[in-house]
Amino acid sequence: MMKWVAGGVTAAHGFQASGVSAGIKRLRKPDLALVVAEEPATATAVFTTNRIQAAPVLISKRRVRGGAARAVLINSGCANCLTGSAGMQGALTLGRSVARELGIAERDVLLASTGVIGRRLPVRRIVRAIPRLVQRLSRAHHTAAAEAILTTDLQVKEAAVEAVIGGRVCRLGGMAKGAGMIAPSMATMLCVITTDVAIAPALLRALLQEATERTFNRISVDGEMSTNDTVFALAGGASGVTAHRGTANTRLFAQMLEAVTGRLAHLIVDDGEGSTQMAAIRVVGARTAHEAQACARQVANSPLVKTMLAGGDPNVGRIAAAVGASPARFDPQKLEVFIGHQRVIAGGVALRFTKAAFRKLLAHPEVQMLIRLHAGHAEARMLTCDLTEEYVRINARYTT
Amino acid sequence: MMKWVAGGVTAAHGFQASGVSAGIKRLRKPDLALVVAEEPATATAVFTTNRIQAAPVLISKRRVRGGAARAVLINSGCANCLTGSAGMQGALTLGRSVARELGIAERDVLLASTGVIGRRLPVRRIVRAIPRLVQRLSRAHHTAAAEAILTTDLQVKEAAVEAVIGGRVCRLGGMAKGAGMIAPSMATMLCVITTDVAIAPALLRALLQEATERTFNRISVDGEMSTNDTVFALAGGASGVTAHRGTANTRLFAQMLEAVTGRLAHLIVDDGEGSTQMAAIRVVGARTAHEAQACARQVANSPLVKTMLAGGDPNVGRIAAAVGASPARFDPQKLEVFIGHQRVIAGGVALRFTKAAFRKLLAHPEVQMLIRLHAGHAEARMLTCDLTEEYVRINARYTT
Repeated sequence: MMKWVAGGVTAAHGFQASGVSAGIKRLRKPDLALVVAEEPATATAVFTTNRIQAAPVLISKRRVRGGAARAVLINSGCANCLTGSAGMQGALTLGRSVARELGIAERDVLLASTGVIGRRLPVRRIVRAIPRLVQRLSRAHHTAAAEAILTTDLQVKEAAVEAVIGGRVCRLGGMAKGAGMIAPSMATMLCVITTDVAIAPALLRALLQEATERTFNRISVDGEMSTNDTVFALAGGASGVTAHRGTANTRLFAQMLEAVTGRLAHLIVDDGEGSTQMAAIRVVGARTAHEAQACARQVANSPLVKTMLAGGDPNVGRIAAAVGASPARFDPQKLEVFIGHQRVIAGGVALRFTKAAFRKLLAHPEVQMLIRLHAGHAEARMLTCDLTEEYVRINARYTT
Repeated sequence: MMKWVAGGVTAAHGFQASGVSAGIKRLRKPDLALVVAEEPATATAVFTTNRIQAAPVLISKRRVRGGAARAVLINSGCANCLTGSAGMQGALTLGRSVARELGIAERDVLLASTGVIGRRLPVRRIVRAIPRLVQRLSRAHHTAAAEAILTTDLQVKEAAVEAVIGGRVCRLGGMAKGAGMIAPSMATMLCVITTDVAIAPALLRALLQEATERTFNRISVDGEMSTNDTVFALAGGASGVTAHRGTANTRLFAQMLEAVTGRLAHLIVDDGEGSTQMAAIRVVGARTAHEAQACARQVANSPLVKTMLAGGDPNVGRIAAAVGASPARFDPQKLEVFIGHQRVIAGGVALRFTKAAFRKLLAHPEVQMLIRLHAGHAEARMLTCDLTEEYVRINARYTT
């Protein structure tokens, strides 16, 4: 019914993209990306809940309220955050320049930035690069765009799916970045989703919020929450299909959206700064959904659990200590923990294994941890990665 | 009025201590400590709030309710947690053995353990070591005891003060351990405080809770909360001085207690696993005390702030991002941040410095960060340390 396709953020018909080097980063690395809808598109977005928000977040928040957009301009190498009114002016100048070059209204340009906080944008350098960026727009250049939004990421992150809705072929795809500062309540991540399904702004917004809640908000690299996190969704209508609230079309569309955001979220954790291993944490039997989620988060963010993964040496007490430190209420004498299919804690007691048997449990690229609280019926999941010396190396030297 | 003295946990008159190797740790490292009051003493304790609690925590909690104790037995190398009824029996056996050897009641023996969670105590080996431990009891052996409670700590942690209260010389001293898992709501830390001031159990308990709240609960190494954290306080009366509620004596006694717990808390952060640098974080101008505290904690626990300290490369956006991610309400355009005496964020804007000037700000063994929210009058402090590659190395290999 639904299949993975190539094409990332331009897999859907009606979208073009490009990526160039504007000289924001050193060594002429690509650092400026543009995604354009060929026709007016429905637009919505989900933003960071950090109280400190970057200039492009403040601008895009305002613009997206109209429910429509034509272009998304993203730069890497500079977050344009803590930059005051100069930062706001700079971001507005960039948007104006893109609007002029594309011949569209200024309010139809959405903006995002990622990189070091507190540095000023090199506005003139970026403005000079915009004509080149617009010239290179093409359906074929999705990977150039996906590359230009990366910071400490090692891998380009693209995903797209195709499905037949009401007899017609529809597509939904996207690109994302994010590697460190990946946290509860979204990551230091940016994401652009495009689709050729037509959909009303309010419905797109509701579906995007739900998909974000179930995917991007369920991952953790280091427990940090960024000032710049943004997920944009643009919906054209080139497929001729419209998704109306409460219909089978919309249910399928929601599945496409969750498949793509889920895949991108997975790619983000897999590419976590310095990370070599992932862990999927599932908490079941919690009293409330909130407690299940808080418990899964506590385990996912625990430096001791994360270094345990890095060391490959199961120290199940660290999992139990994180569970016990969370707000989840449960009877310690009923706690049960599985790693993979192996029960490692039963009735609140750590089971005994040889060191070799224990090490084998963690010798898996995506470790499955199941935590049974036996206190109720709520459950939650989180995806996390290990904490390695490389994470520290990367982050101790980031601005230099 | 108050001066630092040597003597640690036996600085106060009427206490003896010892530390031996019982063979719990490898390489015959000291791993068993005993502190004994020569006469019946008032006793109280503060325990971890983790829902998973070690066997000795459960036993000591019950025993300390009586308000009196004679001895504290502590082992390192094994947390005796997640060990079920076998762990409870083991801990009870140790307490019984100490009581028999000292000729005191079993309920007067308090217990604590620290080390790997989930492993069983080698009870018979420890029981065999207890006669030797009791034989070596002496006022001179405070450092042997302080050494025997260490795990990944590099330094022995002792502190003691002397003051004249009501014309008589009084003392209060203690020892502590803790290096990783040091967190909000106490650290993976153990602490024993002794004093020769006489004081009623309820008052001692109130003062110990307050001192813990102001010192041990204001430090963070890695944001973890342990299953074994315990702070014991034993008060004899050898000085002939009694502290009664609401008197000047008690105010001075409370200062002595906070001085010693504050010093031990400082030593714990200074010896944080892999840490090379400390940071004192002060949040002022918050709307409520709770928000001030939550904000200071968020900064103190932020891996990005902690790796920034390790790298010595000020990336002030990370401080702002942590402040913004906390529950504290404030106007982002009023945020002000100082490092040392230098203002680095003003009116929500990162000020510009040369890289050399910036690096100089962090070239201090105890960096002072002041965060002004300009939203109210509440304030809070936290003491934290940097996150280094060494922390990851230590914790990736801890059980092996």
